[in-house]
Amino acid sequence: MFFDCPLPSMSTDRVLLGHGSGGKLTSELIEKLIVPAFANHALAELDDFAVVDTGGTRLAFTTDAYVVSPIRFPGGDIGELAVNGTINDLACAGARPLALSLALILEEGLPLDTLRAVIESIRAAAARAGVAVMTGDTKVVERGHADQVFVTTSGVGLIPPGRCLGSRFVRPGDAILISGPIGDHGVAVMARRAGLELDGVASDTAALHTLSGALLETCRDVHALRDPTRGGLAAALVEIATRRDLGIEVDESAVPVREAVRGACELLGLDPLLVANEGKLVVFVPEDSADRALAALRAHPLGAEAARIGTVTAEHPRRVELVTPVRGRRTLDLPFAEPLPRIC
Amino acid sequence: MFFDCPLPSMSTDRVLLGHGSGGKLTSELIEKLIVPAFANHALAELDDFAVVDTGGTRLAFTTDAYVVSPIRFPGGDIGELAVNGTINDLACAGARPLALSLALILEEGLPLDTLRAVIESIRAAAARAGVAVMTGDTKVVERGHADQVFVTTSGVGLIPPGRCLGSRFVRPGDAILISGPIGDHGVAVMARRAGLELDGVASDTAALHTLSGALLETCRDVHALRDPTRGGLAAALVEIATRRDLGIEVDESAVPVREAVRGACELLGLDPLLVANEGKLVVFVPEDSADRALAALRAHPLGAEAARIGTVTAEHPRRVELVTPVRGRRTLDLPFAEPLPRIC
Repeated sequence: MFFDCPLPSMSTDRVLLGHGSGGKLTSELIEKLIVPAFANHALAELDDFAVVDTGGTRLAFTTDAYVVSPIRFPGGDIGELAVNGTINDLACAGARPLALSLALILEEGLPLDTLRAVIESIRAAAARAGVAVMTGDTKVVERGHADQVFVTTSGVGLIPPGRCLGSRFVRPGDAILISGPIGDHGVAVMARRAGLELDGVASDTAALHTLSGALLETCRDVHALRDPTRGGLAAALVEIATRRDLGIEVDESAVPVREAVRGACELLGLDPLLVANEGKLVVFVPEDSADRALAALRAHPLGAEAARIGTVTAEHPRRVELVTPVRGRRTLDLPFAEPLPRIC
Repeated sequence: MFFDCPLPSMSTDRVLLGHGSGGKLTSELIEKLIVPAFANHALAELDDFAVVDTGGTRLAFTTDAYVVSPIRFPGGDIGELAVNGTINDLACAGARPLALSLALILEEGLPLDTLRAVIESIRAAAARAGVAVMTGDTKVVERGHADQVFVTTSGVGLIPPGRCLGSRFVRPGDAILISGPIGDHGVAVMARRAGLELDGVASDTAALHTLSGALLETCRDVHALRDPTRGGLAAALVEIATRRDLGIEVDESAVPVREAVRGACELLGLDPLLVANEGKLVVFVPEDSADRALAALRAHPLGAEAARIGTVTAEHPRRVELVTPVRGRRTLDLPFAEPLPRIC
């Protein structure tokens, strides 16, 4: 069952920043080096969660390391991001969050007040979401061997009986919805890094379990949920298209982007489709239920600006096509190494 | 329920290496800064696992960050250590491991061959233990902002009905057993770091779930299990004594230490009682069952050199007393900042 032949060859022989960007290099690292080693059903799904069956009870299980720089940015910080991000992976499994764990790697010399602020932010985010941080670990490395603080959160959630979500359930004909405007998180971090103060640009970090819960109560036939983080909406769609041998069509003018974010993207030379989100859901749902799903999203404060953005198709498998405002078409591709390191 | 008064004052205003050592500074950081923020029953127990009740099914949940330096050392590497360490936290809960998660933080420039070797070691350790790595995450930070590779593993395990282990069950009169000789892991890492090649010194890293499983099948009345990692046997005992208001007596001559390890400790100026172990269990069991528990440990290959080392007492609460070979007594105390950073 485990992999014991030589691993596939890679583009480079060293880890590059781009391996963490959410672009093609990230896919290569994960698909060629990591997944083959652990060949198992759950990991091979490449969803952001695993389903663990304990004999009757089905659990969602997920983990994320957060290395965002700077650790504070407009709209949030590394602690809030970590809590919300892990809850959102559970939300994409349709799971009710049961418990979080917290592993901290601290750099020697970090002011304790900085650590206190991160801890307070983790506490507040967990309290808002109604989930307990139940276990943890703290390590310290010498000055210059980490960057202030890295936060790894893991989460366990309970999947209600009969609920089965995952990219493998996506089918041709599915409607694709997004729960709100894209690009806010990545633009907020990049703007702060560039020293820009931009009005109306802030991370969208939010815990989405109540939004997914409300959606899934109304629409029991939703096929898959994704939170489009690193690599943005583009990576979420391209991954599903390539891994599931499906085509995807996106109406580019239907994809909501705030004016301030669009302006900031032009300033920073970014494509909003490629920029990370930390409080959005991409929904794959059968055509018949699309309107109901959209209404359910819009009825929730975190989904008020939800929109239908595209359709899954059996045409052009493994390709995401953008229908552009002037009725042209272009293929959406991921950059080799997207230029947004340490965005989460 | 959550903490909202000013946090207790700390000895320093910056993170020191000693905050990660397993000594008093570590306790201070965790007990004064982290635990109060997340005031909840599971975290306040300060066991290395939390028990999550899913309504019928009880899960053990644990997380650990590994930053050991160097990443390879006699007897193991960071990958094997991470897998075994997380399984051992589940083993201390009496849980059967169900799934592991893996979060990697990679330093830009890390040779992919080094990463491959770590992944292979994680794969092999998980396969040996019969546990799947089911979900994961990979982040990359710039050169000089991490040290090669940091590994955070989390684990979920199933606690059989009726099994309740934890430091809160330890009682005066309990016998204290150790499953084998102490100090091997920490000494192996420190020797490698000092550039010493020492015969017969290697990490004891091992997955202990089959050992704890065999013990608990035989002795259903075991009160608590601890794996004495950072801070060594001393930290494991002092933590239970101080947090549970109990006294502990240890017969120093009964504590098994390999000759090679004792010699290396003298060379390196270390006290074996303070040195990390990565393949040992400390067992707290009622006196009546002590012999049976010892026999059960010795019947397992990983417990062949188990020994009874002490007793829990109502005398001298919050103090661990060592009865020394010359029948003297000394109080076992943790150093303020134990001089063994990045040992795991």
